[in-house]
Amino acid sequence: MKALRAVDIIRKKRDAHELSPEEIGFIVQGSTNGSIPDYQVAAWLMAIVWRGMTSAESAALTEAMLRSGKVIDFSDMPGAKVDKHSTGGVGDKTSLVVAPVVAAAGVRVPMISGRGLGHTGGTLDKLESISGFNVNLSLAKFRSVLKKCGCALIGQTPEIAPADKKLYALRDVTGTVESPYLICASIMSKKMAEGIDALVLDVKTGNGAFMKKQMDAEYLAELMVESGTRMGKKVVALVTDMDQPLGRKIGNALEVEECVEILQGNGPSDLRGLCDDLAAWMLVLGGRTKTVAEGKKLAAEMIESGKAREKFREVIRLQGGDPRVVDDTKRLPRAKHVKILKAPRDGFVTSIQCENVGVASMILGGGREKKEDVIDPAVGLVLRKKVGEKVRRGEPVCDVHYNSEARLPVAMALLKKSFEFGPEAPAVLPLLIKVIGGRQFETWK
Amino acid sequence: MKALRAVDIIRKKRDAHELSPEEIGFIVQGSTNGSIPDYQVAAWLMAIVWRGMTSAESAALTEAMLRSGKVIDFSDMPGAKVDKHSTGGVGDKTSLVVAPVVAAAGVRVPMISGRGLGHTGGTLDKLESISGFNVNLSLAKFRSVLKKCGCALIGQTPEIAPADKKLYALRDVTGTVESPYLICASIMSKKMAEGIDALVLDVKTGNGAFMKKQMDAEYLAELMVESGTRMGKKVVALVTDMDQPLGRKIGNALEVEECVEILQGNGPSDLRGLCDDLAAWMLVLGGRTKTVAEGKKLAAEMIESGKAREKFREVIRLQGGDPRVVDDTKRLPRAKHVKILKAPRDGFVTSIQCENVGVASMILGGGREKKEDVIDPAVGLVLRKKVGEKVRRGEPVCDVHYNSEARLPVAMALLKKSFEFGPEAPAVLPLLIKVIGGRQFETWK
Repeated sequence: MKALRAVDIIRKKRDAHELSPEEIGFIVQGSTNGSIPDYQVAAWLMAIVWRGMTSAESAALTEAMLRSGKVIDFSDMPGAKVDKHSTGGVGDKTSLVVAPVVAAAGVRVPMISGRGLGHTGGTLDKLESISGFNVNLSLAKFRSVLKKCGCALIGQTPEIAPADKKLYALRDVTGTVESPYLICASIMSKKMAEGIDALVLDVKTGNGAFMKKQMDAEYLAELMVESGTRMGKKVVALVTDMDQPLGRKIGNALEVEECVEILQGNGPSDLRGLCDDLAAWMLVLGGRTKTVAEGKKLAAEMIESGKAREKFREVIRLQGGDPRVVDDTKRLPRAKHVKILKAPRDGFVTSIQCENVGVASMILGGGREKKEDVIDPAVGLVLRKKVGEKVRRGEPVCDVHYNSEARLPVAMALLKKSFEFGPEAPAVLPLLIKVIGGRQFETWK
Repeated sequence: MKALRAVDIIRKKRDAHELSPEEIGFIVQGSTNGSIPDYQVAAWLMAIVWRGMTSAESAALTEAMLRSGKVIDFSDMPGAKVDKHSTGGVGDKTSLVVAPVVAAAGVRVPMISGRGLGHTGGTLDKLESISGFNVNLSLAKFRSVLKKCGCALIGQTPEIAPADKKLYALRDVTGTVESPYLICASIMSKKMAEGIDALVLDVKTGNGAFMKKQMDAEYLAELMVESGTRMGKKVVALVTDMDQPLGRKIGNALEVEECVEILQGNGPSDLRGLCDDLAAWMLVLGGRTKTVAEGKKLAAEMIESGKAREKFREVIRLQGGDPRVVDDTKRLPRAKHVKILKAPRDGFVTSIQCENVGVASMILGGGREKKEDVIDPAVGLVLRKKVGEKVRRGEPVCDVHYNSEARLPVAMALLKKSFEFGPEAPAVLPLLIKVIGGRQFETWK
């Protein structure tokens, strides 16, 4: 047999032929161990952006990336292990709600999350606004927290899918991020390494999402469901709207605060609704309830009974954080100043440019433009008005929590442009657009 | 103005937008001086293979590559300077004929050539089979030889288009060789640096050519003519057939021998015909004759009068070689053994798989599989029969000149598969398929 050569594999993909699992594995392994130079990997990635991948190729890529590192095994722990993953948005804070809710209901949630970049926030950054909270647990500690309290929330570890770390860094600087096949493999290889039995995906679409077009979001959702299913996991994807921020609060500590409100049975209804949907699907896939309706009911019970809140306190305590924030959100960092953006006219909010709102929060210090940037956990935005809500001239539309006078004007200018007003209330579409891959599981047991 | 970033330029090309000359220059310069890493350049090259380039982009790329190095100026030497360039084939040895013919007719030919790779031969390798011939002249020496005798034949120097050297090495290992835009820029940037006024391109098509399909060859020819014309040069492209080897001899010393035969007024008619066409167009573009017909007549006179042969002796002598080979080809290296491939049946040669014949010669040692391989100047093939010629069972079809017993069987097996025989003579198409860009020059003065 002829030895594999990177250049032949690049040419094959360039010419739109299907690569074998061996060929894909050869590149992934070579990239990770450095035996294939980055320039060949970069050309291969661009050829994939161009030509796409078949289902078999996608699965092989995910598998190769997964096998580049450690695959956690939680099979010694009884019951299903279920995670949730979101493709990212603005004010997207559901992880902090669904993890304790689902764990309280008896399904384990081992969650490995990411950090914010650009206009989107990240679960790890939000958790770190809780004093002492440690997201950098070893895998052994991750296991023990999960065992003790039913959920654990950590960051990417070097053992998990190192190929993805390498490839993502390269994609970031070579214009090869935007391929559904590469996005799918990146997400799924990490998720499949978590030792889970099932996964609920929240694929965002709209102007604040990575996939602006619904068609693209649905395609990515289908790819990920297929990829996970091929690997023997139960996977459902919810395609959800990100045309305006989720909930009312954006910024790390502010988002933790809003999650606590939800766990207290309060908080904005859009956020609560999505948390209910996600938790319900996790409970269905985890075999805890037979239907989504029952799952929603059980999730609501966990919130109303205070069990979810207790679970949140427990996981915070086990990960070294201050659990008192769950009862007293004043313990979270607070920005020194608040500037209020006011409505320029009477009428209704007709749209909120969601990506710009995320960028405004980033500019205040709530996010990162570059990976190295340091985050200010206290800053952010509180939307007093969302799309469809009535507003009077001069009424507050958005509170801007800031610490830097220098950064405020840029953020304010961007925010001003982000809100549109009109004489009539626009139709507000439902947050949950579509469920992909769900039908077969609703009566699963 | 925002600073240029490689990743933005890659993304722009990936998304099929036109790049500005500044953006193209930024990448070419960054690649050459090392400020842009190879992985970004590789992704950019693959995006070009995918999306192609507009005429303006092609011209900007050629210009940027040209400007990366020295541009020779021969304007102090009277008269037009004209070069010929071939995209490469098997038995393609016209440079060794047309340079002395055209120089003898009074038009200077400054020729910077390449080496053979894969199934194709290279002018420099052929010249080096002449004992002592030095192709590695400095640019000063190149100038002095050109001034003295009207032609000079050298290899690529580090001063000429260093960007091409860098980019070509990267393309070679990233599957990005096969883009007409990149091929065009690579060829034209080097040719435009030679200090020439005009250029005749021999773009090969057929199974022994780089561009197998005539359509692709014509497209590349048009690109190169347009690119050269935009840069103020007179450029004509001849699209010619490479479906069987050119002439009868393949291999370095054997090809020099065949060129000497042509210069003596003998040799195969297909090779002579193409040399006449190329020389005639060079004489037209160089302002020496008004029409191609007159050019052909003048070229024939140079051969019949012995003036071209004298010019060949002169340039060999000036470049350190043994000029006696022009009168006594036994002075060229000779292989130790000759094996004869015989016809398996009566009939006609219906086809010769040209690329395989080139590979067979390479296997014998006449070419390079990898750049580092060392060439044996003596080995090669002599085709006793070409397409359309009658053959009897057992009659010699091809003489195989070899030095290595180990290499012979592989080459023989390949050669056997390369000849096809049939009961009837096939139609043999003309060698010259099309002239691109010529019409405007035929009466040029």
